[in-house]
Amino acid sequence: MKKTTPKVGLAPGTLVHVGEIKIETAGITLFNYTDENLLEKEVRHFEEVVPFKNSADVTWINIDGLHDVDIIEQVGKLFGIHTLTLEDIVNTNQRPKLEEFDDYLYVVLKMLFLDQDKNRINAEQVSFVLGRTFLITFQEMEGDIFNGVRDRLRKGKGRIRKKGADYLMYALMDAVIDNYFLLLDHTGEQTETIEDSMLADTSHETLVRIHDIKRELIYFRRQVWPLREFLNTMIDAEFDLIEEPTRLFLRDLHDHSIQVFDTIESLRDILMGLQDVYLSELSNKMNETMKILTIIATIFIPVTFLAGVYGMNFKYMPELEQRWAYPAFWIVVVLIIVLMMVWFKRKRWLS
Amino acid sequence: MKKTTPKVGLAPGTLVHVGEIKIETAGITLFNYTDENLLEKEVRHFEEVVPFKNSADVTWINIDGLHDVDIIEQVGKLFGIHTLTLEDIVNTNQRPKLEEFDDYLYVVLKMLFLDQDKNRINAEQVSFVLGRTFLITFQEMEGDIFNGVRDRLRKGKGRIRKKGADYLMYALMDAVIDNYFLLLDHTGEQTETIEDSMLADTSHETLVRIHDIKRELIYFRRQVWPLREFLNTMIDAEFDLIEEPTRLFLRDLHDHSIQVFDTIESLRDILMGLQDVYLSELSNKMNETMKILTIIATIFIPVTFLAGVYGMNFKYMPELEQRWAYPAFWIVVVLIIVLMMVWFKRKRWLS
Amino acid sequence: MKKTTPKVGLAPGTLVHVGEIKIETAGITLFNYTDENLLEKEVRHFEEVVPFKNSADVTWINIDGLHDVDIIEQVGKLFGIHTLTLEDIVNTNQRPKLEEFDDYLYVVLKMLFLDQDKNRINAEQVSFVLGRTFLITFQEMEGDIFNGVRDRLRKGKGRIRKKGADYLMYALMDAVIDNYFLLLDHTGEQTETIEDSMLADTSHETLVRIHDIKRELIYFRRQVWPLREFLNTMIDAEFDLIEEPTRLFLRDLHDHSIQVFDTIESLRDILMGLQDVYLSELSNKMNETMKILTIIATIFIPVTFLAGVYGMNFKYMPELEQRWAYPAFWIVVVLIIVLMMVWFKRKRWLS
Amino acid sequence: MKKTTPKVGLAPGTLVHVGEIKIETAGITLFNYTDENLLEKEVRHFEEVVPFKNSADVTWINIDGLHDVDIIEQVGKLFGIHTLTLEDIVNTNQRPKLEEFDDYLYVVLKMLFLDQDKNRINAEQVSFVLGRTFLITFQEMEGDIFNGVRDRLRKGKGRIRKKGADYLMYALMDAVIDNYFLLLDHTGEQTETIEDSMLADTSHETLVRIHDIKRELIYFRRQVWPLREFLNTMIDAEFDLIEEPTRLFLRDLHDHSIQVFDTIESLRDILMGLQDVYLSELSNKMNETMKILTIIATIFIPVTFLAGVYGMNFKYMPELEQRWAYPAFWIVVVLIIVLMMVWFKRKRWLS
Amino acid sequence: MKKTTPKVGLAPGTLVHVGEIKIETAGITLFNYTDENLLEKEVRHFEEVVPFKNSADVTWINIDGLHDVDIIEQVGKLFGIHTLTLEDIVNTNQRPKLEEFDDYLYVVLKMLFLDQDKNRINAEQVSFVLGRTFLITFQEMEGDIFNGVRDRLRKGKGRIRKKGADYLMYALMDAVIDNYFLLLDHTGEQTETIEDSMLADTSHETLVRIHDIKRELIYFRRQVWPLREFLNTMIDAEFDLIEEPTRLFLRDLHDHSIQVFDTIESLRDILMGLQDVYLSELSNKMNETMKILTIIATIFIPVTFLAGVYGMNFKYMPELEQRWAYPAFWIVVVLIIVLMMVWFKRKRWLS
Repeated sequence: MKKTTPKVGLAPGTLVHVGEIKIETAGITLFNYTDENLLEKEVRHFEEVVPFKNSADVTWINIDGLHDVDIIEQVGKLFGIHTLTLEDIVNTNQRPKLEEFDDYLYVVLKMLFLDQDKNRINAEQVSFVLGRTFLITFQEMEGDIFNGVRDRLRKGKGRIRKKGADYLMYALMDAVIDNYFLLLDHTGEQTETIEDSMLADTSHETLVRIHDIKRELIYFRRQVWPLREFLNTMIDAEFDLIEEPTRLFLRDLHDHSIQVFDTIESLRDILMGLQDVYLSELSNKMNETMKILTIIATIFIPVTFLAGVYGMNFKYMPELEQRWAYPAFWIVVVLIIVLMMVWFKRKRWLS
Repeated sequence: MKKTTPKVGLAPGTLVHVGEIKIETAGITLFNYTDENLLEKEVRHFEEVVPFKNSADVTWINIDGLHDVDIIEQVGKLFGIHTLTLEDIVNTNQRPKLEEFDDYLYVVLKMLFLDQDKNRINAEQVSFVLGRTFLITFQEMEGDIFNGVRDRLRKGKGRIRKKGADYLMYALMDAVIDNYFLLLDHTGEQTETIEDSMLADTSHETLVRIHDIKRELIYFRRQVWPLREFLNTMIDAEFDLIEEPTRLFLRDLHDHSIQVFDTIESLRDILMGLQDVYLSELSNKMNETMKILTIIATIFIPVTFLAGVYGMNFKYMPELEQRWAYPAFWIVVVLIIVLMMVWFKRKRWLS
Repeated sequence: MKKTTPKVGLAPGTLVHVGEIKIETAGITLFNYTDENLLEKEVRHFEEVVPFKNSADVTWINIDGLHDVDIIEQVGKLFGIHTLTLEDIVNTNQRPKLEEFDDYLYVVLKMLFLDQDKNRINAEQVSFVLGRTFLITFQEMEGDIFNGVRDRLRKGKGRIRKKGADYLMYALMDAVIDNYFLLLDHTGEQTETIEDSMLADTSHETLVRIHDIKRELIYFRRQVWPLREFLNTMIDAEFDLIEEPTRLFLRDLHDHSIQVFDTIESLRDILMGLQDVYLSELSNKMNETMKILTIIATIFIPVTFLAGVYGMNFKYMPELEQRWAYPAFWIVVVLIIVLMMVWFKRKRWLS
Repeated sequence: MKKTTPKVGLAPGTLVHVGEIKIETAGITLFNYTDENLLEKEVRHFEEVVPFKNSADVTWINIDGLHDVDIIEQVGKLFGIHTLTLEDIVNTNQRPKLEEFDDYLYVVLKMLFLDQDKNRINAEQVSFVLGRTFLITFQEMEGDIFNGVRDRLRKGKGRIRKKGADYLMYALMDAVIDNYFLLLDHTGEQTETIEDSMLADTSHETLVRIHDIKRELIYFRRQVWPLREFLNTMIDAEFDLIEEPTRLFLRDLHDHSIQVFDTIESLRDILMGLQDVYLSELSNKMNETMKILTIIATIFIPVTFLAGVYGMNFKYMPELEQRWAYPAFWIVVVLIIVLMMVWFKRKRWLS
Repeated sequence: MKKTTPKVGLAPGTLVHVGEIKIETAGITLFNYTDENLLEKEVRHFEEVVPFKNSADVTWINIDGLHDVDIIEQVGKLFGIHTLTLEDIVNTNQRPKLEEFDDYLYVVLKMLFLDQDKNRINAEQVSFVLGRTFLITFQEMEGDIFNGVRDRLRKGKGRIRKKGADYLMYALMDAVIDNYFLLLDHTGEQTETIEDSMLADTSHETLVRIHDIKRELIYFRRQVWPLREFLNTMIDAEFDLIEEPTRLFLRDLHDHSIQVFDTIESLRDILMGLQDVYLSELSNKMNETMKILTIIATIFIPVTFLAGVYGMNFKYMPELEQRWAYPAFWIVVVLIIVLMMVWFKRKRWLS
């Protein structure tokens, strides 16, 4: 959980970057395309962006790095973005949401990807500002999730170059959500590993691992739930920035988000079940331990008493003098042990 | 859970088969019928299907095997099916859903049947594309669930030959859902078996079995829940592909789906109860073990101490010299045992 | 749970009796009445019913026994009942529901009554087909729940003879639901019995009994929940078969169904609480057992060791020679016991 | 839970008193007032009420005691109350509800108050019949909850005498709900007492008390939930019996009911938490007991064995002859004890 | 939980202060501003407020201290506030709510802040009465949460002086909600501390601390839930007191409230998980204790018996006479110990 402290007490609409700085200097890349032409540009100075503002072609500006508040502000001014939107863009604590403003739609999502080193889920916030002919995307750092879309743009195959900024946004959101499935596959595998090793190993680690995965799924779920909701809105609501044919694709995306959600829910159910099995296994082991102790104690305590009796030093203990006494003692001991064994057998304590 | 990995990173609308290949070569069968005539055909070359495209009679094309993406694509082109639909057809990770397109309705369901060998539920995805005069069904492999409908078509008895493609789709969906009841009966029997054997056998297996069945029911539930929803939509919504009299039958189907759902829910409740009983039974057994240990220890530890005392080698122990000492020792021991027994009896530890 | 197997694979609308046969031969009784006249008739041959079909007076036909599919079919033909309705009537696995058809309303309910021998809830399915001037009821066997209504019809007192078939249906449904209260009283008593005996008796039986009652309540709840829903529909919907004044009575019935539902829910809450108390009681008893064992062991193990020490046969053990040694040993033993006791007292282990 | 048995099998609309008889003879009091005048009357014979029926002033008739079905019936006839309403009035098993009839509104509530002797919640049913100029209230017995309203009427201060019967009903309902807060304060105190004493005392009593309070809260909640609902209806619905300004007060009442509901819910959450803490405390104590037993046993069992060894009577045991043997034995014993202690210390078993 | 007792039995609309008195004398401060001018005033006598009543500029009156009912009443009279509103203002048991009256909106919130001494959440009630040109705020005591807004007013920077009373109310509510994030950060840290120390320390304290935090979160949640609801109403409803541009800011606030809510929920999930881990850890430790006891007992009880046997005083025990007997005894003992060890190793009891 990131601290939200720096924001408290400031006037609403003040731009303050909240979150880790994940990239040194912010980078801007620009795509401007029609069906026939494509211009790709690494932007060094912000002024280079200005001419594209009123371009009739589709313009996609991607900004990596949110800590450089000045750039965000300049973009905001140029494209007429509300300060509240800008404030949300630089605060990486947003929950996924869709907001309609007069001239644009604002969408914020979380990219989730696996941190290979720590073997846990990492999140990066992506904001989309969709205007009539432009789409501006804001990421916390450079990432490779959008590269597939970039390649498709460059190659100009398929429908992406023939369509507007709304389809571009869909394609990028699709890339983000597709990645969720990768994560779920990973989590599914982890769950199976736990399940397989559970009966062999009831160490406390198991529960902690179950608990960690459950926590990641809760986080995951919190990112998908609002997504589901607002995709629904995007399909049905009368945003004229989104064209009719794109809605069909958004419906497909909505469907994916439900699939993600369902998978999360069933993974949680499975983990809940594993936890139950784990706890009962623990109980079971305790019971086994108790049985062993009880069997040993129940057999030896009485015979030890008997041995103690004939170790007493009373002067007049007639048995002590008998020749048959010692063998008789052993017979009694064996008898007691056999009887106990039979009794335990009947109680199904001995397999 | 099937991996979804192969899909990630591709452009939307790319046809990629996701899932196991369950059949070697895809097979196409075709039915074309009116009330009077019936034509049944095993299709070898896809071109044979073309003439039926604009047939005024009802045409049912059934395709077994989804991995042959070419065939799916050809069918798609011929009947004007959207690429998003085709993508869903070949991806066997779909959740049940209904989607309306301009010229057709797309329905996807899961056939569930019992894998006799492994004694667990298997799923196969079935897609329906319902047009004005045609119905195309896509299955993962050949199955016998639709055979009842085929026989009714061949015999021409009942209302099936008199009605349109919408009724045919209903009849096939009905066959799928009827099969759910068979599965529930099986699961119900398994549950009863567990219940009967529970008190005799508290091995850890029991919990694992309860947990497995619960998991299958969760999967089952996930297939039925959306079904319920979209059947409702089919009954109420203004799809002109579905005629008024067929809606009455769909209402019946909806009713069945609720029955399936209810049965799943009550089986889950029963299994939850069994789990509670199992865990308390475990606790109970532990308590029993503890009592036995405590009884034995409580009786013998004091008398063993006494025996120990008279085994000591002090020079001046007046009792040792007395003739009555040894019998007196035994009397004390018996007394202690009897008193303990009475006390345990009063504590209801001995039945 | 009844098997649903016989139905699977048949064409929709095929009449197959699903369920136990509870009566040997189906019986038909007929009431035909206005405010002034009443005709009651035991029907031997189905033809006797025919003349009443278009009677302007209210006609109530009650059929006991659902396994005689022929009779059901004849009734269906005579009164124009849809085959889907007939199919539902003879399948005793229905959940309570209301269905509107062109000429009639179809209502299905469960009569619940106490099986005195087995001390558990039994269910019988009752179907109502309400037409303009007739009401047809289908029961699995003869029962006495409707006798109160029959008597009121015969005596002609109250409003029942003055009103139409819709009021008759209400009166019969009221009789069914009234009976639910009897069952809840019974279940409530059982719950109290368990509660009273719980502290005395923590045998495993208790939990099994709690679990059985919970299961019956789950079944009960499943019968009442849809009832609640469709009574609401009957009150609000524009069925012209139900007259305005009758709706006031249906509202009362709806109210009763909510009361039943509430009582079920609070009984479940109480049973859940009892289960918690039971399990904690079990834990508590285990703790008690442990304490006794620990007290005994903690007191005697050290002193037994001491006795063991002076039972050793070392040649040079100066204490053994002393006159005061043996009494001193006993003083030490008593001291240890007293100290332990004080310590247990301070730990509140001894009351 | 009161038995509902007497009602079963009777015709709907039959007046049968269900519940305990809490007062010997039913009493009727009557208030008739305008802003200027107030008439208060203890009614002996029912005829005295008749003249007030069409009074233009506000008339409040309060009836204590529901078992005298005749009086209820006479009132019903005089003021045109439907038999279903009368039936509900005398059946004290009603859940809180609001019903609209042609000429009047029927409201039923539960007065809840503390039974000082038994230290538990008691309930009394109050019914309100609100007509254009009259309000009739039905209570199970005389109570002092309405006395505050009576005093305000007598003194004629405030707005009560200036307003209509609808405001009077509001004022009485407000008195009932105000009393709920008293009860919640009491329950809150009980909860705090349990919490304070919990750590000191883990007797089984604690759980039973938690469980009892939870049960009372469940009952309480069942009385408040429907109240909340129907107050909402009273505020929004178009009952012309309730004037606009009174709705503002009903909104306030609705707010109180939500507050009551919230408090109940948070008390339940707190009790749930206490139960968790209690059970873990139990586990903890068991663990402590186990540790003590294990420490004692682990220290003394090995040394007792050693003492046993040198108590053996083998002829050739060289150690026995040595002078240093006995002191050496003690050194070994002390060493074992010290080592064990260190080990337990490192395992944090000894504080 | 504050007592509500003083209110019970009084006429609705009676002003009674419910809650702790947190400040000695009530203080009034007044701001009156337009874009150009700002008047700030510490009010000594209430009359000083009167001239501002009809001021066309925005007037903000802040009242600290609710126990001085007279002042509240005077304010109420001056600005035409309904007695029900006044009653709510002085009763600090309100849940957050929004109420619309003819001339004003009434909003009540809880300020939550950390009591540094006791390390727990404290709450203070704030009421807002929003009129056309004025805003009146009521606090329980002086606080510094509003100081940021005061500074912005004084400096006249930003948009606050250019906007109306509705924006001022938004700014103050924003300050309150911003503070919630501080609290959540604090709670998040506490949770992490517990998590880190858990495995080291399973003392009962841990659970009590988890339980305390959960309780605070439940309280917190109860304050945020209604807030979320009524902010939604403020955004959508047709209150003409709230201007269109302000609604955009309220939407932002609504978003924050959802974020707070989500964070609370995920903290609760985390704490629930910690509790599970804690309880299983407890079980685990018990199991460890049991194993140690069992290992010790299982090894030494049999060999102690053996030692006991050769301590018996039978006259004819051939072994005693043998030279090899004593070493043989030790060999047997070591053998038993080794075999036991191997067995424990195979059972994975010894790591």
